[in-house]
Amino acid sequence: MVSALLVGAAAAQSSDDWRPLDLEHTLYLELASGRVVIELMPAMAPAHAANVKALVREGYFDGLTINRVQDNYVVQWGDAGQGDARREIKTAKRTLPAEFDVPIDPAMPFTPAPDPDVYAAATGWSQGFPVARDPESGRMWMTHCYGTLGTARGNDADSGGGTQLFVVIGHAPRHLDRNDTAFGRVVQGMELLSVLPRGTGPLGTYERADQRVRIERIRVAADVPEVERTRLEVMRTDTPAFASHVESRRTRAEEWFKYRVSRIEICNVPVPAR
Amino acid sequence: MVSALLVGAAAAQSSDDWRPLDLEHTLYLELASGRVVIELMPAMAPAHAANVKALVREGYFDGLTINRVQDNYVVQWGDAGQGDARREIKTAKRTLPAEFDVPIDPAMPFTPAPDPDVYAAATGWSQGFPVARDPESGRMWMTHCYGTLGTARGNDADSGGGTQLFVVIGHAPRHLDRNDTAFGRVVQGMELLSVLPRGTGPLGTYERADQRVRIERIRVAADVPEVERTRLEVMRTDTPAFASHVESRRTRAEEWFKYRVSRIEICNVPVPAR
Repeated sequence: MVSALLVGAAAAQSSDDWRPLDLEHTLYLELASGRVVIELMPAMAPAHAANVKALVREGYFDGLTINRVQDNYVVQWGDAGQGDARREIKTAKRTLPAEFDVPIDPAMPFTPAPDPDVYAAATGWSQGFPVARDPESGRMWMTHCYGTLGTARGNDADSGGGTQLFVVIGHAPRHLDRNDTAFGRVVQGMELLSVLPRGTGPLGTYERADQRVRIERIRVAADVPEVERTRLEVMRTDTPAFASHVESRRTRAEEWFKYRVSRIEICNVPVPAR
Repeated sequence: MVSALLVGAAAAQSSDDWRPLDLEHTLYLELASGRVVIELMPAMAPAHAANVKALVREGYFDGLTINRVQDNYVVQWGDAGQGDARREIKTAKRTLPAEFDVPIDPAMPFTPAPDPDVYAAATGWSQGFPVARDPESGRMWMTHCYGTLGTARGNDADSGGGTQLFVVIGHAPRHLDRNDTAFGRVVQGMELLSVLPRGTGPLGTYERADQRVRIERIRVAADVPEVERTRLEVMRTDTPAFASHVESRRTRAEEWFKYRVSRIEICNVPVPAR
């Protein structure tokens, strides 16, 4: 009696409803347990996307570690060293002005979520990512959903830059929206991050160095030989097929469902990958 | 540069703001890795709460297994056997009429969540649990948040009964609200469930018997010798201190926050335990 609680993503109508990942903005995070595939949304944080790629390309992350795993919250990686023990940065920048939100680009496709959101005036999907918009201020930002990539920082808004990154592994911490530079999402391999032992130190930090999880390396997918690339497509979010997918999550047709709420919230529609 | 993304639960004002767990309605789920403490809300599903306690007290779950771990969704346990291979039930019932929701009890304290919800007319907290209400139909039910305990079933609404239970380990699957009998929550030990290897079969089932995670036993806390009990208190949810806690999550006072959204959604306020 294994219950059919969830039926997989609805099939889209045609191959035009899917797109390949943008290889120049896709990262492969390699752990001993396998590969985590992360797609960046450069339009959401152009300087951070460029800086993280520069860090990746100079090998900054290779051999560094996952240092923090907080249950129902985030997995965070980067340099565990402090002060002089910090890893040298060659060409990239250590910190950048925050990119918590950006101006709404009227030319950018936006598929609105069908129901009002608790946290934002409007939510929806752009370029394959969950986003929120505030028409009054003309700003948009990425919503912190399960799998969202964010930038750690200190108390100073401009103290991040991508040397420490995190991924959401729990219920969407939407209070982080517009409080850190969020600009990507895990497309494949979430289960390699979500199963990591939770840290027992403050904020889920690993208390002992030997608990940290080594990052073998991070590469930009475009730099990886074709045979080593992960073949992945994501569903386009600017098509009728995607709107229909959202509606299939909003009103469940499967026999198992007895009460069909016909409501859906942005983070309950992960963008399908195949 | 470990970012202070989260500050711990706000301290309550007095010991009257906390209550001990209801031992007669608390389960200890014992795994090799430790104890998961689950508190039931019998008012939400009286027949299921009684039946699960009857199953526990006849030793039904002891030596059975966790059979399903689906990333960003649920951990589910019970009898992996089918047909004649199913474990015998002595005094409890195998199935029960569904208790997806119950009449609103006007005498039951209800602390409303301060902001409108995406899925329900009203949400809030009763007796320490996250609940939703529909004043029009006069019904209330438990919301599926991270850590909520639910009852697996087949396509027939009345095909569950508590022999297979699940706990939410991902973003709140609110589309399950009123679709299964949800009647408890994990108070301590979530990280013992959330780190379990994800199953690679349909719906996250473990494909091989040796992947299943053995349940050493489940006991009702009241039946456990006092020295073996887990000392835990949960914050009362019918006090000004709790309303103040909710507000502290809604508008973050910590210096780290640059944008204070002043909005909060039911599943982003786990009820604190200590």
